[in-house]
Amino acid sequence: LNHLVADAPTTIFTLMSALAQRHGAINLGQGFPDTEGPAEIVKAAADALLDNRNQYAPLTGLPELRAAVARSNERFHGLRIDPDHEVVVTSGATEALAASLAALIEPGDEVVLIEPLYDCYLPMVRLLGGVPRLVRLLPPEWRLDRDALAAAFGPKTKLLLLNSPMNPAGRVFDQDELGFVAGLLERHDAYAVCDEVYEHLIFDGARHVPLMTLPGMRERCIRIGSAGKSFSLTGWKVGYVTAAPALAAAVAKAHQNLTFATPPNLQRAVALGLDKEAAYFHGLAADLQRKRDLLSRGLEGIGFAVLPSRGSYFVVADITALGFDGDDTAFCRHITEHAGVAAIPVSAFYGDADPPPRHLVRFAFCKQDSVLEEAVARLRRHF
Amino acid sequence: LNHLVADAPTTIFTLMSALAQRHGAINLGQGFPDTEGPAEIVKAAADALLDNRNQYAPLTGLPELRAAVARSNERFHGLRIDPDHEVVVTSGATEALAASLAALIEPGDEVVLIEPLYDCYLPMVRLLGGVPRLVRLLPPEWRLDRDALAAAFGPKTKLLLLNSPMNPAGRVFDQDELGFVAGLLERHDAYAVCDEVYEHLIFDGARHVPLMTLPGMRERCIRIGSAGKSFSLTGWKVGYVTAAPALAAAVAKAHQNLTFATPPNLQRAVALGLDKEAAYFHGLAADLQRKRDLLSRGLEGIGFAVLPSRGSYFVVADITALGFDGDDTAFCRHITEHAGVAAIPVSAFYGDADPPPRHLVRFAFCKQDSVLEEAVARLRRHF
Ligand SMILES: CSCCC(=O)C(=O)O
Ligand SMILES: CSCCC(=O)C(=O)O
Repeated sequence: LNHLVADAPTTIFTLMSALAQRHGAINLGQGFPDTEGPAEIVKAAADALLDNRNQYAPLTGLPELRAAVARSNERFHGLRIDPDHEVVVTSGATEALAASLAALIEPGDEVVLIEPLYDCYLPMVRLLGGVPRLVRLLPPEWRLDRDALAAAFGPKTKLLLLNSPMNPAGRVFDQDELGFVAGLLERHDAYAVCDEVYEHLIFDGARHVPLMTLPGMRERCIRIGSAGKSFSLTGWKVGYVTAAPALAAAVAKAHQNLTFATPPNLQRAVALGLDKEAAYFHGLAADLQRKRDLLSRGLEGIGFAVLPSRGSYFVVADITALGFDGDDTAFCRHITEHAGVAAIPVSAFYGDADPPPRHLVRFAFCKQDSVLEEAVARLRRHF
Repeated sequence: LNHLVADAPTTIFTLMSALAQRHGAINLGQGFPDTEGPAEIVKAAADALLDNRNQYAPLTGLPELRAAVARSNERFHGLRIDPDHEVVVTSGATEALAASLAALIEPGDEVVLIEPLYDCYLPMVRLLGGVPRLVRLLPPEWRLDRDALAAAFGPKTKLLLLNSPMNPAGRVFDQDELGFVAGLLERHDAYAVCDEVYEHLIFDGARHVPLMTLPGMRERCIRIGSAGKSFSLTGWKVGYVTAAPALAAAVAKAHQNLTFATPPNLQRAVALGLDKEAAYFHGLAADLQRKRDLLSRGLEGIGFAVLPSRGSYFVVADITALGFDGDDTAFCRHITEHAGVAAIPVSAFYGDADPPPRHLVRFAFCKQDSVLEEAVARLRRHF
C-alpha cells in the first residue's frame, strides 16, 4: 500500500461525527448546517432529475453553471471571467483542491501552507510529491507573520495555498496582508491556490477580497468556490474553479482523471443559486453572524475564552480557564462523551513538524438556534 | 505546471462529443445511453432531495448503499462482503480508480496494464509515480497473451489493472484466463484493481466472473462497479469499491482527499437500484445485445468488418475494406464531419510506447434503435 495514503489518519471530522452519533451528542464538530438550503434550489435539482438530465455533463461543467460562476465573479468582485475557458466545475471543493494541486505541483516543488490548516491540505501536497513549507499564525489574532511568510518562500516555491475566510481560525485576510502575499508571489514567480469556500460567510462588515482581484494576480491565482457552503447544501459536492485559461485548462486535465464530471441536475440547480439576489447572500451571512454570537455568548458564560471569528462556520475557543486536565483532543472526546456536545480539537489543523497549540477547540455554529442553546445548556450543566 | 497533467491531451471522448455537436452528428463516440435509467430510481433520487438528504454523506457512503452493494455481491457472485468495512462509495468509477491506484502505488512501483486500455489509466498511473508495463491484446480475438503477460510481471510489480468486460474490445475474460492472472498475482505478491463497470452489460450468455471470486484473490482485488453503467444514469457519477478491509480502508483514505463524499440523494436511489430483481439486469443486457446486433449488421452491410463484442457499450469495427485514405483518427473526424456520425479511434486506447493499430474504430450502441438506424443510413449514404 502507499504508506502516505494508508497510514494517514481518518479525517477528524469523520471520527468526531461518529463519536457524536455513538453518544447521542449534539454535533458541533463537522461543519454542516442542520437545516436545508433554499427550497427552490433543491426543487430545481429534483425537477432537473425528472427532466432527463442524467447523462454525463461536459467535462468542465454545464455551460449554464459556468456562465453563472462567471456572472457571480463579475457581480461580487468585478472580475471578468470567460465562462468557456476560465471556469471548471468539480465534484466539490475537495476535488477542486486536489485537481488544482495536481495541475501545479511536480515532485520536489515547495508548497507554502499556513497553519492552522484544513486537514486535507498536507496529505494532498505530500501525495503529489510536494514539499510543504509551513508558516504559523498565532492565536488569538491569527495575523499573518510577514517575516515568517517571506522566509518560507524560496527558489523552489511553486505555490501558496491560501484559505480565506479561514477554517478554523475565522480570519478574513485584509487588503494589506493580501498585498504582501501578492508581492511575494510576484517576486518568486509563484502561484496561489485560493480556497475561498466561505467567501459569502463573513461577519461584522468584513469584506472578502479574492487574492485574484489584486494587481498582477489574475494569472497567478486559482480561486475555488463551493455550492455546499454558499447554499447550505454540503452533501451536493459541487465546487467551481476560476482561473486564467492556461491554469483552468490544466485543472480540467486533472479533473478529467479524478472524477471526469459532476451530476448535471445538481449543476443546474447551483446555477440558479448563484444568480440569487445579493440579499440572499447577505441574509445567509447575517444569520450565521447571529448564530456565532449566540454560541459565543453561551460559551463565554461557561468560562471559555472565545476568539474572534469574522468568517466561516466556526469559532475557536480557549479552554484554559476551564481547568480541564488534558489536551484539546482529550477535551473534545470528553465533552462528546460526558457533556453530549462534540467539537473539533484545533491541534488537528496542524502538521507534525512542531507541536501544535493544545488549548483550543473549534465549535461549528451553523446549527439551529435551539440546537446551539441546548449545546450551551449541556456544557453549562457539565462544567 | 505539472507537465504530466498540463501536457496531457483532453480526453478523446470530450473532443469527439464536441466535434459531433458542432457538426450535428449522431454521437456514437462517448459511451452514454440516450434514454434514461429506470424511472423509479430517478424518482427516488428526486424524492430524497426533497426529503432533506442534502448534507455530507458519510465518508465511505450511506449505510443503505453499502449494504446494497454487499447484497448485490452476494446475489450475483456469492461473495460475502462486510458493508461496514469492505465497501467504499465514490463519486463515480473514475474516482474509484483514482482512489484505488493512489491507495496502492508508491513512486517507482510497476503497474501492469493491458492494451487497448481506457484512456485515463496511463495518466493516473504516471501522476502517482507508477511505472507502466504494457501488454497488448491482438485483434480480432483480443485474447490474453500469457507469455507477454507473465513477462510484464517482475519483482517491482505492485498491481495489475484489469478491465473486464473490456472497453473498447468487448472482451469478457474467461475463467481460464482469470486463473492464469490469479497465478501471476500470487506468484508476484501483487494486487489487482478490477474495473468491472460493465459487469452487467454482457451478451451471448457470457458470464462475468470477478477476479475476486477466484481462490486466493479475495485479499488481492479491488473491485469497482458503476451505477452510471448499471442503471443507464452515467451523469450521476456514483461508483462503489469492494475490497478486503485493509484495502478498503486505504481506498477510503484516498477518497477522503479526492472528493470526501458523494451526493446522498443519488446514493439512496442507487441503493434501490442494486436491489432490483435479476430480470432488470438481464433485460438491460438483452436490450443492449439486440442493439449491438442492429448496429453490427448495419455496419457490415456497409463494408466494415465488425469484431465480436461480448460486453460493454461498444463494438470495434475494422475499416480496412472501406478503402479510406487515412488512419482511424482521420476516419473518425471524417465521418463526424462528412457523414454526420461520430465514433472513437481505437488508437486512442494505446500508450505511446509502440505504434497502435490504425485500422479500428469504436462505435457505441447504447442508443435508441431509431438513432442507430439513422446512423447506419447516414454512413451507407456516405460510403
Ligand atoms: C468535508 S468534512 C469537514 C467539513 C468542514 O469543512 C469542516 O468541518 O471543517
Ligand atoms: C467518462 S466519458 C467516456 C465514457 C466511456 O466510458 C467511454 O466512452 O469509453
